[in-house]
Amino acid sequence: MKTLIIVAHPQLADSATQAFLKAGAQLPDVTWHYLDERQSINVAAERQLLLVANRVILQFPLYWYSAPAILQIWEEQVLQVKGSLAGKELGVVVSTGVKAEAYQAGGAEQFTISELLRPFQALTHKLQMTYLQPFVLSQFAHLSESAKQRLFIAYQQYLTLSVSAAFSERESWFVERLKRMIAAKPELKDRVTLILEQLETQQEQLDELQWTLQMMKASENDDE
Amino acid sequence: MKTLIIVAHPQLADSATQAFLKAGAQLPDVTWHYLDERQSINVAAERQLLLVANRVILQFPLYWYSAPAILQIWEEQVLQVKGSLAGKELGVVVSTGVKAEAYQAGGAEQFTISELLRPFQALTHKLQMTYLQPFVLSQFAHLSESAKQRLFIAYQQYLTLSVSAAFSERESWFVERLKRMIAAKPELKDRVTLILEQLETQQEQLDELQWTLQMMKASENDDE
Repeated sequence: MKTLIIVAHPQLADSATQAFLKAGAQLPDVTWHYLDERQSINVAAERQLLLVANRVILQFPLYWYSAPAILQIWEEQVLQVKGSLAGKELGVVVSTGVKAEAYQAGGAEQFTISELLRPFQALTHKLQMTYLQPFVLSQFAHLSESAKQRLFIAYQQYLTLSVSAAFSERESWFVERLKRMIAAKPELKDRVTLILEQLETQQEQLDELQWTLQMMKASENDDE
Repeated sequence: MKTLIIVAHPQLADSATQAFLKAGAQLPDVTWHYLDERQSINVAAERQLLLVANRVILQFPLYWYSAPAILQIWEEQVLQVKGSLAGKELGVVVSTGVKAEAYQAGGAEQFTISELLRPFQALTHKLQMTYLQPFVLSQFAHLSESAKQRLFIAYQQYLTLSVSAAFSERESWFVERLKRMIAAKPELKDRVTLILEQLETQQEQLDELQWTLQMMKASENDDE
């Protein structure tokens, strides 16, 4: 799967969040593409990028409950309602400066992120694309190191994993990643191999459990 | 009451809708203010306009389910969260090219205009302003002449009438307007005077009816 990330952030150089996400986007088949306000948009080039992607990610900080103006300009110039994007996926990666709980009825921001992003959901529907659940980063600067590590993995999975990925696929994704890590850094081999063995044991147990559940379900159906 | 209309429309000269609305905005205490994309925004002047207004109207066509980029630029540069706009009213006048029924669950556009405008409602809440119900123009070009006339009056009332205006106040507003019409065009006097008399008779009947209702309510309360 090919993923295209459209980054709209007027102060990119000052954004620790975007630097973190850019590091996460260094993956095969993932294109990180910045919309520079100082340059005019090359409409043909933008459309070509969209055409070869299977998943399109719009990535931006929330400015007045919407995307920065540059993304709106990009939409006005690049998007067409012609079915050329039909069947592709659209995801929104949005960062906010306030805590996640503020975005709910009665909270400081009154509305959920899902509600505020309705224009993007409507646009996805119009283009006959599939809308992915938004990936939200709240108060990134306040996160602990371990929370950032979990976020890093979750972001990479958001960019690359199929939407219907079951728990077992998410685990396989992780195993694959660890194996690549051993190949790249042999000195980590002993530590990583131990983690791998644990994961594979868990995977076998999980498979057994699922098989048992299926059998139980089958026998229940027999009883009916 | 002073009303400020912020107009965001990249193709203003080609818009029959905006020309119609501009004609409607020729009223005392109403300022029609166009955001020209070719000029940079004078932030101090924009803030001054906001400060003297009691009601701020954001007026634009829906582009990809949001406002044109120029309005987002204006928001980013001009708005501040400092309470300087607290207590003022904010209304959205939005034009769409598709029929009104398309904006609902299961409809062609999937979401209501209210849902798509959540970012503006959230912004209004953040600025401690009062959100007016949106004024929506759907497929303006397809409207009959009489529908356009009704829309013209409704738009002028949206710009100038208090939110809590009861039916009787709306009628007084209309009477006031007719009287001014006679002053400006004496040749219409006979026809307009007839309409005025009818309206005033209706108003008296309405007043009587309301008085009767109040008496009935009062006697009900006595019984309790």
